[in-house]
Amino acid sequence: MSTSKPKSWRTKIYETIYEADTLPGKAFDIILFALIIISIVLVMLESVTEFDAKHHEFLYYSEWVITILFSIEYIARLISVKRPKKYIFSFYGIIDLLSTIPMYLSFIFVGSQSLIALRALRLMRVFRILKLVRFVGESNRLMVALRASRAKIAVFVFFILIVCVILGSVMYIIESDQDSGFTSIPRSVYWAIVTLTTVGYGDIAPATPLGQLISSIIMILGYGVIAIPTGIVSSEMTRKAQKEEIQTNTQVCANCFNSKHKDEAEFCDQCGTSLDR
Amino acid sequence: MSTSKPKSWRTKIYETIYEADTLPGKAFDIILFALIIISIVLVMLESVTEFDAKHHEFLYYSEWVITILFSIEYIARLISVKRPKKYIFSFYGIIDLLSTIPMYLSFIFVGSQSLIALRALRLMRVFRILKLVRFVGESNRLMVALRASRAKIAVFVFFILIVCVILGSVMYIIESDQDSGFTSIPRSVYWAIVTLTTVGYGDIAPATPLGQLISSIIMILGYGVIAIPTGIVSSEMTRKAQKEEIQTNTQVCANCFNSKHKDEAEFCDQCGTSLDR
Amino acid sequence: MSTSKPKSWRTKIYETIYEADTLPGKAFDIILFALIIISIVLVMLESVTEFDAKHHEFLYYSEWVITILFSIEYIARLISVKRPKKYIFSFYGIIDLLSTIPMYLSFIFVGSQSLIALRALRLMRVFRILKLVRFVGESNRLMVALRASRAKIAVFVFFILIVCVILGSVMYIIESDQDSGFTSIPRSVYWAIVTLTTVGYGDIAPATPLGQLISSIIMILGYGVIAIPTGIVSSEMTRKAQKEEIQTNTQVCANCFNSKHKDEAEFCDQCGTSLDR
Amino acid sequence: MSTSKPKSWRTKIYETIYEADTLPGKAFDIILFALIIISIVLVMLESVTEFDAKHHEFLYYSEWVITILFSIEYIARLISVKRPKKYIFSFYGIIDLLSTIPMYLSFIFVGSQSLIALRALRLMRVFRILKLVRFVGESNRLMVALRASRAKIAVFVFFILIVCVILGSVMYIIESDQDSGFTSIPRSVYWAIVTLTTVGYGDIAPATPLGQLISSIIMILGYGVIAIPTGIVSSEMTRKAQKEEIQTNTQVCANCFNSKHKDEAEFCDQCGTSLDR
Repeated sequence: MSTSKPKSWRTKIYETIYEADTLPGKAFDIILFALIIISIVLVMLESVTEFDAKHHEFLYYSEWVITILFSIEYIARLISVKRPKKYIFSFYGIIDLLSTIPMYLSFIFVGSQSLIALRALRLMRVFRILKLVRFVGESNRLMVALRASRAKIAVFVFFILIVCVILGSVMYIIESDQDSGFTSIPRSVYWAIVTLTTVGYGDIAPATPLGQLISSIIMILGYGVIAIPTGIVSSEMTRKAQKEEIQTNTQVCANCFNSKHKDEAEFCDQCGTSLDR
Repeated sequence: MSTSKPKSWRTKIYETIYEADTLPGKAFDIILFALIIISIVLVMLESVTEFDAKHHEFLYYSEWVITILFSIEYIARLISVKRPKKYIFSFYGIIDLLSTIPMYLSFIFVGSQSLIALRALRLMRVFRILKLVRFVGESNRLMVALRASRAKIAVFVFFILIVCVILGSVMYIIESDQDSGFTSIPRSVYWAIVTLTTVGYGDIAPATPLGQLISSIIMILGYGVIAIPTGIVSSEMTRKAQKEEIQTNTQVCANCFNSKHKDEAEFCDQCGTSLDR
Repeated sequence: MSTSKPKSWRTKIYETIYEADTLPGKAFDIILFALIIISIVLVMLESVTEFDAKHHEFLYYSEWVITILFSIEYIARLISVKRPKKYIFSFYGIIDLLSTIPMYLSFIFVGSQSLIALRALRLMRVFRILKLVRFVGESNRLMVALRASRAKIAVFVFFILIVCVILGSVMYIIESDQDSGFTSIPRSVYWAIVTLTTVGYGDIAPATPLGQLISSIIMILGYGVIAIPTGIVSSEMTRKAQKEEIQTNTQVCANCFNSKHKDEAEFCDQCGTSLDR
Repeated sequence: MSTSKPKSWRTKIYETIYEADTLPGKAFDIILFALIIISIVLVMLESVTEFDAKHHEFLYYSEWVITILFSIEYIARLISVKRPKKYIFSFYGIIDLLSTIPMYLSFIFVGSQSLIALRALRLMRVFRILKLVRFVGESNRLMVALRASRAKIAVFVFFILIVCVILGSVMYIIESDQDSGFTSIPRSVYWAIVTLTTVGYGDIAPATPLGQLISSIIMILGYGVIAIPTGIVSSEMTRKAQKEEIQTNTQVCANCFNSKHKDEAEFCDQCGTSLDR
């Protein structure tokens, strides 16, 4: 990707920011990664009221430092990219903007507490850096297996949702007179999801024997049904793994054109001809 | 499915309602799907007391619109079908009736709150529409895998239930003196199911050391035992996937047009002709 | 198993009780199954104080009827069996005795509440009946897969326990000063098991940030670790299923003695000879 | 490992402590295993205040006995080992020291309650003994499968953590005004982990409809996502199991004694000699 032609400073910025095979590119990614993690930790600590009370000054100024650094980065991206408009309205463009803007907005709208947390979206920027790193090869294989079973999983989730709405409504009929938290159908559906996924908070729990009987059925259903997404992904991965294995170990025999050999094979196992490697 | 003969209006209604390969058939399905979803959302909102207080009028009249539309559809189905009696007493016939009748009944039995939720059963009608849509191919494969492991899963659920009854009774003996919620055996069995399926509400939780020891055993049991349904479905799906794959790697025999051959086959295994590759 | 020789009455009783291929044998099993289920339901209802208050008389007399029937069965088993001593001290012998004795003991020790629940052990007798029924073929295959992965699962459970003891102790150090329920190491270990198995009652929950950090690690560990027993059983079952498949579909070619043919093969796919079946 | 040369007493101690194929070696391992388990039970009981109140004397003196025995063992290990320094700073060296030192420290720092629990780390020493025992063959296979899918699992855990931070922050924005426990972002992230892993304590639970909607999404996500680590390990194990199987179906080449052949091999794939079967 790096040519021997003299590069413009815009190309240089572009290569530093968007690529990871040059030294400055790598350094940029590592520093950005560190900055994102630090800024997330700061955002988290700021939300802890006891910590914020003690170290408010420190948090405030470090936040400004990070905001300014991110702003510079944002502008650099805007300049170096060929089509700035496309970048601004792209997914990562919006995330980048949301990562810098809350501090500036806090000047205008004083006391906007909830804007703090918006900065946590900065973490999403980590994914962009990771995309460039080699170790994502593993995650790619995961993605392929997931994508292959996407349709099956969508059907499954849709089915789960319908079951939860129906069961939630049934539980509402049974338990709405009780003081057990089934105050509306949406809440009951929420409870059904909590139960079916085996999370089980206990903030809403059936009080009547009939309600408990039906929840037992939901639980066993949920317990059995978890086998389905697992089965889908497992079988998809097993298949993928087997295919890869078969396709990696191939040499072709010069005599009989047999192409299925073990990795260590030196002679064709169908005709005895040397594989001559 | 569509012939060139001139069709009676009953056949036309039938094709519109029950089939999805004509344009009006597709339109009907999409509209019905939207109506069901809208009506479910309305039922849900109606059960939220704050929302109902504000928008009672709106909810009441929209509900009547939907009820009348569903009634027309019910009558149309009744007319167009060959054996109306069979339809009335079929699973979907009953669901269709239950989807329309609560509003009419609310005239007679004033203040029947719980009838509201009965209307949530309308959601089941979604399954009928989905049956016609192509994307259910995926769900069909799921169903085949599930059906193949049906017997194994039934044995498993039965076994889980027996274990829960026995463990629930044991916990009742241990914990019934305590104030920890094990007030009767059915309740203790309910607790055992809540625990074994790893839902864990916490509305009932053991208080004695012995009770906690036994629950720990139940939990680890449940944690290990979840492997079983998962294992069943996974292996069934892997098998299914492999079979399908075998049928994909095919050559066609020039003599008998048989297209199912093993990968290493050199002769057609149906007629003995050389596959000549 | 049934010979044409005239049988003694003891042999007849034996065959009725212990075998299921004669008509009286089948009838006996069905009646016994029904009796066990009824008696369990009665035991359950008896433990529900409201129900017991209303129908105490009915429950008391039905319990006596069942106890007497089970006593007769126990004596019949004792007489018909060749080595009564061995039967008495066998697993099912003890269960059978425990199923009948509580009512007789309630004469001697008045007000022994907890003996009620002991009768729930009757449910274990169901397993004996099921052993005879054909549908257990499925459960047998499950058992084979489980037995094959027994050693792996034992290692896994042992490992889980050690991890829970260590993590429980660590949490006790951190949280024992708080009022969050970590009052002793055994209780903390109990909590660790509740958390690792993703049950999560919430009766004990960490209150300190450090405690919550460590619990988060335990949870993610538990979430990842559940993959292990599932993986073990899945792979074992896939293997078993593949073996069965391979071993079922075999004919040998008369010409080249190739023994791997597809189910529908009529000609050998290695040499083209007719399989002549 | 045992030679016929006369051994020094240091070598003898070494063999007893570090090896398990001599009689004293085996005896040592069994006694050590028992001592560790006993000492752990004692540490646990000591933390139970009621038990400690009654049997304080007994616990105190048994603890001293165990501490002295462990100290002797520690010194013996130190003497017999070739490089004592390396041992002291090795993982097990530190664990061994931490297993003995708390009692001595309790002389100096009186009333150091939390040191009690430190002794629970003794349990880790069990792993060293287990390493020597044969039954760990099974656990080794587990380890191999886990190590093979290590990278995939790391990616997965990292991804889960990022998702939890983002979702936790979003929930903080939504729920921080409510009295539902989302008091800071770290706490909300803790909640997100509790929910995604389907543990669900219920100490923190969403109170707003929007919060419940988002939690429902997290739950279903978590429920579906559990399929991923399971799929990874399952496919890895199935592959491992199949590979092992392939290595079992073997013939030995008469020429080069190669014993790894494919099932259908007719010629040795290492030297080209006909396998002549």
